[in-house]
Amino acid sequence: MAGAEIERLVQALARLPGLGLRSGRRAALAVLAKRETLLRPLAAALEEADASVHACAQCGNLDSNDPCAICTDTRRNGGQLCVVENVADLWALERSGLYRGRYHVLGGVLSPLDGIGPEDLSIARLAARADEPAVSEVILALPATVDGQTTAHYISDRLSNYDISVTGLAHGVPIGGELNYLDDGTLGAALKARHPL
Amino acid sequence: MAGAEIERLVQALARLPGLGLRSGRRAALAVLAKRETLLRPLAAALEEADASVHACAQCGNLDSNDPCAICTDTRRNGGQLCVVENVADLWALERSGLYRGRYHVLGGVLSPLDGIGPEDLSIARLAARADEPAVSEVILALPATVDGQTTAHYISDRLSNYDISVTGLAHGVPIGGELNYLDDGTLGAALKARHPL
Repeated sequence: MAGAEIERLVQALARLPGLGLRSGRRAALAVLAKRETLLRPLAAALEEADASVHACAQCGNLDSNDPCAICTDTRRNGGQLCVVENVADLWALERSGLYRGRYHVLGGVLSPLDGIGPEDLSIARLAARADEPAVSEVILALPATVDGQTTAHYISDRLSNYDISVTGLAHGVPIGGELNYLDDGTLGAALKARHPL
Repeated sequence: MAGAEIERLVQALARLPGLGLRSGRRAALAVLAKRETLLRPLAAALEEADASVHACAQCGNLDSNDPCAICTDTRRNGGQLCVVENVADLWALERSGLYRGRYHVLGGVLSPLDGIGPEDLSIARLAARADEPAVSEVILALPATVDGQTTAHYISDRLSNYDISVTGLAHGVPIGGELNYLDDGTLGAALKARHPL
């Protein structure tokens, strides 16, 4: 229907997560209609990011510097290592502004069904980092899924001989959450971990 | 939190229609994780489209050729001109495969509230094209909104002295549509235009 160049643009946009063919078409028409404000800034940002953004060799965070800005920030607490599944989870914690230690990005969680074992994740590197004298705590901020919690237990076992504390995020009722919409697992965890007021 | 390059990429992706900051972040991480299959094809497609795609001077369709592939396709019926609001609507009609005439893209509809008058749309060019001897029918495939139908009436008035037929799309029950979910306007139009079976 349209030229091959438009078709290729639609297909490339449709492959972005959250978009599909329909929204890919809409996005293609939008960028072609607003070249100065949409198309060119996006093309430039893609190339700039491709050229300069790399995974930090130390923690796995994405940054234009290696080691990344978090690893080299001396105001941050080098005694704490927060283990996250991926960079998206690291960003979520950073947005909260509540954590001032360092990170370790695993690159996934253990998943026997998908054939993901310990050697596929940066667990050996985590063990080496956790062994450094400065580190006193490893916080396992992994997803509250079966695979996530299996991974947390595996890491906690692996670090059990180290002279550090290994902690996990608390489970319970989300702030603002209504009890009648909560699943039984969360309700049970919140009940079990109840505390005096 | 992340480098300036990542932040710019997130912002550029978040401005695409259908995305926002949250899905922009997700898309940025996805393209950075899959550079060969997502990031570079998208960057290349954007630049290629920017360089080669232009509006057809004749009908307003977007294509890498000017006049566009539809205007130069001699197998299409040059006697019919289908007037659409924008290129997205042209694509929708082309996907249906049911129309084999030519198009005219208005570039919007009349909208006094938004200050869009006849001179902001390609109505003068449409009048000139409709005056060509080969043209026998102008089909107004404009949205069934107040502005769309106002525009259809305006164009139909403007072309009333020409020796051509000016037609509009039929209104009625969409195929597969359930009556109890239809609005009164559509139901009324379907009832008024009822036909013997």
